[in-house]
Amino acid sequence: MTAQRITATYRIETAYPLQEAAETMAGEQSTGTFIRLPGETDEMRELYGAHIERLTELGEVEEPSLPGAGVPKGSGGKPVWRRAEVELSWSLDNFGPSLPNLVATVAGNLFELRPFSGLRLLDIGLPEAFAARYPGPKFGVEGTRRLSGVEGRPLIGTIIKPSVGMGPEATAEVARVLCEAGIDFIKDDELQADGAHCPFEARARAVMRVIEDQAQRTGKKTMFAFNITGDLDEMRRRHDLVLELGGTCVMASLNSVGVVGMVELGRFSQLPIHAHRNGWGYLSRSQELGWSYVAWQKIWRLAGADHMHVNGLQNKFCESDESVIASAKACLTPMFESKPCTVMPVFSSGQSARQAPGTYAALGSSDLIFAAGGGIMGHPDGPAAGFASLRESWEAALKGIPLDEYARDHPALAKALTAYAS
Amino acid sequence: MTAQRITATYRIETAYPLQEAAETMAGEQSTGTFIRLPGETDEMRELYGAHIERLTELGEVEEPSLPGAGVPKGSGGKPVWRRAEVELSWSLDNFGPSLPNLVATVAGNLFELRPFSGLRLLDIGLPEAFAARYPGPKFGVEGTRRLSGVEGRPLIGTIIKPSVGMGPEATAEVARVLCEAGIDFIKDDELQADGAHCPFEARARAVMRVIEDQAQRTGKKTMFAFNITGDLDEMRRRHDLVLELGGTCVMASLNSVGVVGMVELGRFSQLPIHAHRNGWGYLSRSQELGWSYVAWQKIWRLAGADHMHVNGLQNKFCESDESVIASAKACLTPMFESKPCTVMPVFSSGQSARQAPGTYAALGSSDLIFAAGGGIMGHPDGPAAGFASLRESWEAALKGIPLDEYARDHPALAKALTAYAS
Repeated sequence: MTAQRITATYRIETAYPLQEAAETMAGEQSTGTFIRLPGETDEMRELYGAHIERLTELGEVEEPSLPGAGVPKGSGGKPVWRRAEVELSWSLDNFGPSLPNLVATVAGNLFELRPFSGLRLLDIGLPEAFAARYPGPKFGVEGTRRLSGVEGRPLIGTIIKPSVGMGPEATAEVARVLCEAGIDFIKDDELQADGAHCPFEARARAVMRVIEDQAQRTGKKTMFAFNITGDLDEMRRRHDLVLELGGTCVMASLNSVGVVGMVELGRFSQLPIHAHRNGWGYLSRSQELGWSYVAWQKIWRLAGADHMHVNGLQNKFCESDESVIASAKACLTPMFESKPCTVMPVFSSGQSARQAPGTYAALGSSDLIFAAGGGIMGHPDGPAAGFASLRESWEAALKGIPLDEYARDHPALAKALTAYAS
Repeated sequence: MTAQRITATYRIETAYPLQEAAETMAGEQSTGTFIRLPGETDEMRELYGAHIERLTELGEVEEPSLPGAGVPKGSGGKPVWRRAEVELSWSLDNFGPSLPNLVATVAGNLFELRPFSGLRLLDIGLPEAFAARYPGPKFGVEGTRRLSGVEGRPLIGTIIKPSVGMGPEATAEVARVLCEAGIDFIKDDELQADGAHCPFEARARAVMRVIEDQAQRTGKKTMFAFNITGDLDEMRRRHDLVLELGGTCVMASLNSVGVVGMVELGRFSQLPIHAHRNGWGYLSRSQELGWSYVAWQKIWRLAGADHMHVNGLQNKFCESDESVIASAKACLTPMFESKPCTVMPVFSSGQSARQAPGTYAALGSSDLIFAAGGGIMGHPDGPAAGFASLRESWEAALKGIPLDEYARDHPALAKALTAYAS
């Protein structure tokens, strides 16, 4: 592999000889077709064909993971299904430092190929040319800390709930309660954008009145991620409104906007972009299909995301803690020497004071956003105590003191540990 | 359901009581959180909560299809996994006629919900407000026929192969051979965009010289779908170049561009948009996860796609013929009274003269693009005979004459039937 090659690593599952299966992938995603053509020379294959950089067998499996896969002739009723890791590489000359065309190559017509009963993209490696071409996060960890004024611990935040149904004034009223509780970060729900009952502009104006008022009184400006997801002109207009009103963050749903839209937003934005991954399940939940988060998040960081959702430990979804931590570590791992593109991982889903020590122990960093819904609003003594309990749980984690011990002289934390005991 | 509600139908699999599982989906995608909040009133639930319109049990399955699903308390080691179809509906007021926000709602945080060992989006239903808001296909079937001059039968086409590696002049030379063979339609491969060895502008100029020359001599202008996939400014520039050069089609990879980018392109384009679905496998191949094509293609038709890839019968991928035909029929089914948004389905992948009768019999229409690679270039008597054999196979299909019989006085078809006998 040279600096000018793009790499992609896959976990495959197949009943075919592994080398043959890997060659099928490489051919399909570069020079190949189902018959060899007159124009296809050996030199062309060498220059523009995908190369197999590595092929590591992982062992046999009893059953094919996905339906529809073919078996080699002669294997009869007894094919042997094997898994392997394959690394392919392509010349940068094939498509240049282009994110949309990268996606078409590393995650294109591969997943349906008949020899495969499993095919998952595990990671991608990109040459520096991509760093030069794309904006990357304009704020990232450092810029988010500067705008929010939170240092030395995670930003502690929450999501406006009920997700939908409240009008602008009711939303602002919830924001007021949260601001008075001292919270660092609030976000719109991804289901709340510009509905007739809660238009974006009226909501942004009402919420920003509360936030500016609080900032003037206390010096602390809560970061509010306004969900600007929409068509391109709408996103630009909403971004400009938030900026004009003194807001410090916008949010967009990655799978709704797509690569080209996010690149446009990344280039355009003068505010941190809080990137929501809703829909991630359909890309990842079948373990032998789709995308790993490690590969996927690189696309969006380059496009300009500043915060990336990673789920949370002991979440209400299906994801394992190990997978959550691998995702969060990926967000904090530099992508390029010239441009690290590191972003703040956002932990959420059923989070309360309980998860702070485990999260810190596994991640080894406090550069994150820790978002709790019920964990703040549902605290027996109200949102201020809910926020205090989360701050205290992170203090304990950062100091290496067990939660139960720290709770002895921190009553908000003590009540939280009882309330969220399950 | 009223005209002002959005609907989505899912196939679910769960060990929970079906009604409870459906309520979890409805809650998660509208007003819900994991604890009931003070602000969440019954009126709000009625107005903005997702409604369960229908719940039809489909029967039990032996094993959970996806990993990580929870089981109800008390089911012990013997949970019973059931499948069902669920139709949910939302008020249009929740997010308005917005494609990006539609996606975040109907295909957002659902697929990871713990009660589900399967969750697949089968279909969506949209009120007329979406038709008013989005461009839809500007050309569709009628416009494509007008620009290509092909009536009464499918457009017969091919993909430039080798996919990557040839420079502009070599590409134009392949195009020349195909134009001289009389072909209706040619497309760039999705891996060919703007690589250093085959820059878009040089390729477009070289290819269009050939096509214009051919058009002047014969009156037939082959439709060439230039792959303009790239960042937004690049796509606009490339579109304008194709238009200026007299080209009649542009191509974009849907999963690379995304919804917002495709909507921009759809509004901007003055040419038919050939929409490539590469990556479709990761959205669909796990049968109990992701998207059905029937639901998915509606998003892109509204955004402005004119041609949609649907794979082909007896293809080289894993998809069944039944699924291919369901996809193609969906493309030809009107979406709205005011704006049908019907598009040309594109059949491809291992296609030859063999598949014409089956395709026509199953689809009941010749409004399609039939793309063959080896089926044209690999014909024993060359591309002109390859094209003739496909045209003849469709003549036979449309006349209801068996291929073998029609081949008796159609030698190109006869040779094709021998060459592609497998």
